[in-house]
Amino acid sequence: MEQFTNNPSAAWIWYPGDFEIRLHEKVSVKRKSRGVMYPVFWRLDRHYSNVSFRYTYDLPQEEQIRITAEGTFSLFLDGMENYRSNAPVITLPAGRHQITVCVFSDAEAPALLIEGEHVRTGPDWEASSYQNDWLPAGSWTFDSPENRPSQFRLAVIPQEPASIELRDGFPLLDFGRETFGYLRFHNLAGAGSVRIYYGESIVEALSPGGCYSLDELFVNGTEVDGEDGIFTLDDAKAFRYVWIHADPGVSWSQVSMLYEYVPLDYRGSFECSNPKLNEIYEMGLYTLHLNTREFFLDGIKRDHWVWSGDAYQAFLMNYYSFFDLDVTRRTLVALRGKDPFIKHVNTILDYSLYWFISLYDYYLYTGDAGFVRQYYDRAVSLMEFCLEQRNTEGFLEGRPGDWVFVDWADFKNTGAVSTIQLLLARSLDAMGAFAGLAGDIPASASYRKLAEELKARTMQLFWDEEKGGLLHHRVDGVTQPELTKHASMFAMTYGYLTPEQRERVIQSVLLNPEVPQIRTPYMMFHEMAVLCEGGQHEQVRQRILSYWGGMIALGATAFWEEYDPSLADDAHYSMYGMPFGKSLCHAWGAGPVYLLGKYFLGVTPASPGYGTCRIEPNLGGLEHMKGTVPTGTGQVNVEVDSSNIRVESTNASGVLAFDSSEQPVCNFGNILPIGGDRYEVVIEAGKSYSISYKAVI
Amino acid sequence: MEQFTNNPSAAWIWYPGDFEIRLHEKVSVKRKSRGVMYPVFWRLDRHYSNVSFRYTYDLPQEEQIRITAEGTFSLFLDGMENYRSNAPVITLPAGRHQITVCVFSDAEAPALLIEGEHVRTGPDWEASSYQNDWLPAGSWTFDSPENRPSQFRLAVIPQEPASIELRDGFPLLDFGRETFGYLRFHNLAGAGSVRIYYGESIVEALSPGGCYSLDELFVNGTEVDGEDGIFTLDDAKAFRYVWIHADPGVSWSQVSMLYEYVPLDYRGSFECSNPKLNEIYEMGLYTLHLNTREFFLDGIKRDHWVWSGDAYQAFLMNYYSFFDLDVTRRTLVALRGKDPFIKHVNTILDYSLYWFISLYDYYLYTGDAGFVRQYYDRAVSLMEFCLEQRNTEGFLEGRPGDWVFVDWADFKNTGAVSTIQLLLARSLDAMGAFAGLAGDIPASASYRKLAEELKARTMQLFWDEEKGGLLHHRVDGVTQPELTKHASMFAMTYGYLTPEQRERVIQSVLLNPEVPQIRTPYMMFHEMAVLCEGGQHEQVRQRILSYWGGMIALGATAFWEEYDPSLADDAHYSMYGMPFGKSLCHAWGAGPVYLLGKYFLGVTPASPGYGTCRIEPNLGGLEHMKGTVPTGTGQVNVEVDSSNIRVESTNASGVLAFDSSEQPVCNFGNILPIGGDRYEVVIEAGKSYSISYKAVI
Repeated sequence: MEQFTNNPSAAWIWYPGDFEIRLHEKVSVKRKSRGVMYPVFWRLDRHYSNVSFRYTYDLPQEEQIRITAEGTFSLFLDGMENYRSNAPVITLPAGRHQITVCVFSDAEAPALLIEGEHVRTGPDWEASSYQNDWLPAGSWTFDSPENRPSQFRLAVIPQEPASIELRDGFPLLDFGRETFGYLRFHNLAGAGSVRIYYGESIVEALSPGGCYSLDELFVNGTEVDGEDGIFTLDDAKAFRYVWIHADPGVSWSQVSMLYEYVPLDYRGSFECSNPKLNEIYEMGLYTLHLNTREFFLDGIKRDHWVWSGDAYQAFLMNYYSFFDLDVTRRTLVALRGKDPFIKHVNTILDYSLYWFISLYDYYLYTGDAGFVRQYYDRAVSLMEFCLEQRNTEGFLEGRPGDWVFVDWADFKNTGAVSTIQLLLARSLDAMGAFAGLAGDIPASASYRKLAEELKARTMQLFWDEEKGGLLHHRVDGVTQPELTKHASMFAMTYGYLTPEQRERVIQSVLLNPEVPQIRTPYMMFHEMAVLCEGGQHEQVRQRILSYWGGMIALGATAFWEEYDPSLADDAHYSMYGMPFGKSLCHAWGAGPVYLLGKYFLGVTPASPGYGTCRIEPNLGGLEHMKGTVPTGTGQVNVEVDSSNIRVESTNASGVLAFDSSEQPVCNFGNILPIGGDRYEVVIEAGKSYSISYKAVI
Repeated sequence: MEQFTNNPSAAWIWYPGDFEIRLHEKVSVKRKSRGVMYPVFWRLDRHYSNVSFRYTYDLPQEEQIRITAEGTFSLFLDGMENYRSNAPVITLPAGRHQITVCVFSDAEAPALLIEGEHVRTGPDWEASSYQNDWLPAGSWTFDSPENRPSQFRLAVIPQEPASIELRDGFPLLDFGRETFGYLRFHNLAGAGSVRIYYGESIVEALSPGGCYSLDELFVNGTEVDGEDGIFTLDDAKAFRYVWIHADPGVSWSQVSMLYEYVPLDYRGSFECSNPKLNEIYEMGLYTLHLNTREFFLDGIKRDHWVWSGDAYQAFLMNYYSFFDLDVTRRTLVALRGKDPFIKHVNTILDYSLYWFISLYDYYLYTGDAGFVRQYYDRAVSLMEFCLEQRNTEGFLEGRPGDWVFVDWADFKNTGAVSTIQLLLARSLDAMGAFAGLAGDIPASASYRKLAEELKARTMQLFWDEEKGGLLHHRVDGVTQPELTKHASMFAMTYGYLTPEQRERVIQSVLLNPEVPQIRTPYMMFHEMAVLCEGGQHEQVRQRILSYWGGMIALGATAFWEEYDPSLADDAHYSMYGMPFGKSLCHAWGAGPVYLLGKYFLGVTPASPGYGTCRIEPNLGGLEHMKGTVPTGTGQVNVEVDSSNIRVESTNASGVLAFDSSEQPVCNFGNILPIGGDRYEVVIEAGKSYSISYKAVI
């Protein structure tokens, strides 16, 4: 079959989104609570089993093609439904003809690979689920009969334990830091049971009755012989420590693991004069990387699920680190799922809204309007679903059975929660943008009008002028007196406050010790961002050092789901009524990756997809810092100390803005004073700028 | 495990409808066109893979239960989600507790069997797909770890060929009549290829290049050895004849088949003075039985699919023959499928409407209000979908891509087709009844009002007083002059005509040779029914004898998809551009089963579920007839000749009505003259009535 060897561009195709939907189905049932399956508690969407693909070709001469399918296929030409072929190789007649291939698979998403000299599957084919929905087929990097979508696996690489010691006569392995993968036994022999207790902390691994993850395997000579004499366990686990209890009759020469991961480029970087901050940044990257998998997961030990609010933050961190769009798109597709929409994303009201905002951020950072257009219909129907749930005042409320989360915190989310209204307003703004991209101008205007009305009504009914912030919720038409940081933070992040209100929020809410403090890295992410937007970089630097540094001081090698500095040292691991319920490697713990990239290096897209960029470095009290922020295919390098700023943007032109207490000097380009100590320089892509200035202390 | 042996009532449970949905998915891809898969061309719905079951028990003492699942399960008590068990046997604590069992299965519908002394799965458990939908769990006859839902198979029984002869040196087997099942080779030996050509007709089997069904198997000694030395082919086929071409090196001792079928009680019967009519009735039963399978199929050879309009008729025939409600319910569930509703049932506008009417008939014949309530929500959403597609005049039209079928006939179904409006009116009437059963009185009134308005508007705009019937369609607000039988037939069947209009329809449309004749048994079913309702039993008897008898005269052993008496003898088998495309065993061919039971024996439910019955026998020119009609668990026996009527209804009381040209005499009960030659007798259940009368010739 020589003619098939040189077709690098033939790609497996599937119904758009179904590869992601099927992968999500598999991932969503991997969670095991002490060895027992704990599936997601929301509807799992499924791939279409009955799919059709089509393509019209025009060949000067006949051509042989090879057909490979995941599932059973039948092929016909020119709509001749009754005359089908299932031959793996056929010769296509010359001329203009339409090929249709039906593929059925109830096991995996139906997929098709056709390899020919000119005719080969790819995104220029269309797919249908027989609902008048001929859409551009989904495809990715799968390109040969062997490299097929259903066989998709993350990469693995062997890792050795950093140390082994005996505890109560049983080996306790320490892999040096949080990791994820498959435990392996080398030269396993004998007969008996091996019980394995995993721990993200040493105390968890040493608690057979309390640890979250465990395994048991029964050794019986030949059965456990894997290839190369290494037996690898079936399930990957999150752990640093492993305590192994084997029956006396069982032996092995060595225990190691296969680390499982997505190969990612570390495109973002940050290095500064504070070694602890550097350590926090690196640990943030590692935490994020561990959770960047088939999808952005919440945490690798416990849920191992795809949560929209968690992913919202992971997306943003990713734009400042790996800029991996495959995991991002997969996550967006999986979270939205299929219609009908009956319950909110992850059953959580706010998590439906984060989906819109995340899609908008995706567009802002990547400029990928095609993806937005592809999912526009699903965005519309999700928004219809949300808008139907507004109360008589026009505020979005949870229905019975809906979970209104906001944060792990001691407040009640009854009635109309102000944070929810702000997320809805932002979502409506996003829909306005999406509708514009989809060419639906009246819908765009309508969404924007709804957004403006909602913002105005929310500010009118929740803003407390005396307290200087937004009150938490409104029940039965009465705004309750409770003040929390959350709504004020979101209002500020999304630019819904006047300059006066912003200042009030910073001083009276965010920096006010009387307002209940935030305990989760999840909301700390937003709090720190808002403080930066209020120019409180020094405060943020200190808070990062104390809060994230506090976890490191307790031995963290990745960042946690929740951290309350006031707790006793041994009280940090329990959550959800389980002694080791807390995740010690949680994506939302990696916030500093985003904060340092966006607010210290200060790089943001000034137009979608970094068509233009804005660079606003802020040392926040550091002596110096340098780093890189990816901007699509390019990047921005920033290096700053108190007297010099160097920036280079490889692809995006834009503006550099900074404060200087004396007149700055630039190697080329004009320095534009814009008032007070503020200056701007127009940056051209590909040029290195060096500015002498004097930092404002 | 002795304690589990005596639990006859433990039943496998699943998410309601998902057993049927999954079975339908499997059946819908069984069609093979000349050996190649030809799947349905509509969206195939799928079972939920992630399902939860719950049950609250109250036990005086602890109890051991055994848990078996299709899929992976985890069980917890009293909402303690974090403390799960996957042990196959556990001991339940005494007292009142709630068990929850999560089951995940992407392969088959998740199902659960729990066997304990008191706690065991059954329809009193609830199931959820995590959409706030705790519903009574689905269950059926599966009751042990071995007898599980995914293993459901129809019954099989060996059959031998009636004769074997050689044609061109290859054996041609004749199984005597149309059959369905798996071909078997006994003591298959040697090496080489065996090519098998199936035929519903002898000429089809003898056409290797044209027959619809074929098989090829490659014999290589040991590989084909089945149990008992018999090799059974994987796929069941529909055929009467088989022509087997084997390579010289292959041998066998015998070829037989496994007939595959649903074991059914032949509860309806009909026997009369005309042997040909008896033969037609029996062949109708057989035709219907062959198509009564996992679901009511259209035909067993070609599509092998579940079509709503076809099933509508099969349901009605079934009420007069097998009264099998399992296949009926499975078919109704599979046809409706899941939301969202994007395209019509089977892509056909009329077929969405037949679903409502079929569900109403189900209620009328069975009285099963529980089933109607269970599917009421899906009926509501399907009706919403239909009503949205009305045009500005309020008439339902096909959208681009919708198939408006009505019948295989030479007319165009553009614009508003009158038949569609009548089906919609009947569907709205049905929705009125369903809403009443569901306790939604305002909705019931609203549906009935919509029905009345639509009937009035349809009669106003389509009735042609001059032609005495309903015109076929209305395009762009203009009723077209074309007259067809169809709409008038449905208007009459559903009682939408005045007595004068009925008479006009019979004389000017149905009995008018100028109006295009009906060519399919599908519409002949309705035409004959309507003629009976117009008292034209003699005419119907003659038409049955000539039309259905005409197929028998051509060698039919089951009734066909289409029959045009005017065709030449060898021109009957082609359809859809294929020389043997026509199905020679089509459910809709079995109409006489219904016609003879309903209109000759004359038994109908006078209230839902045969709470009361009506018996109106009509000899239609026969000398005598006797027969039985099932009425739920009971039956009505009728025996009539020109001077005597004997009836007995085992369960339902009701009314016997008949014509007599002289004063009739009854063994007991009062004979009530109701005008002219018409008399009625009130029938009490369980009593045998014998009436002397004189038939009106």
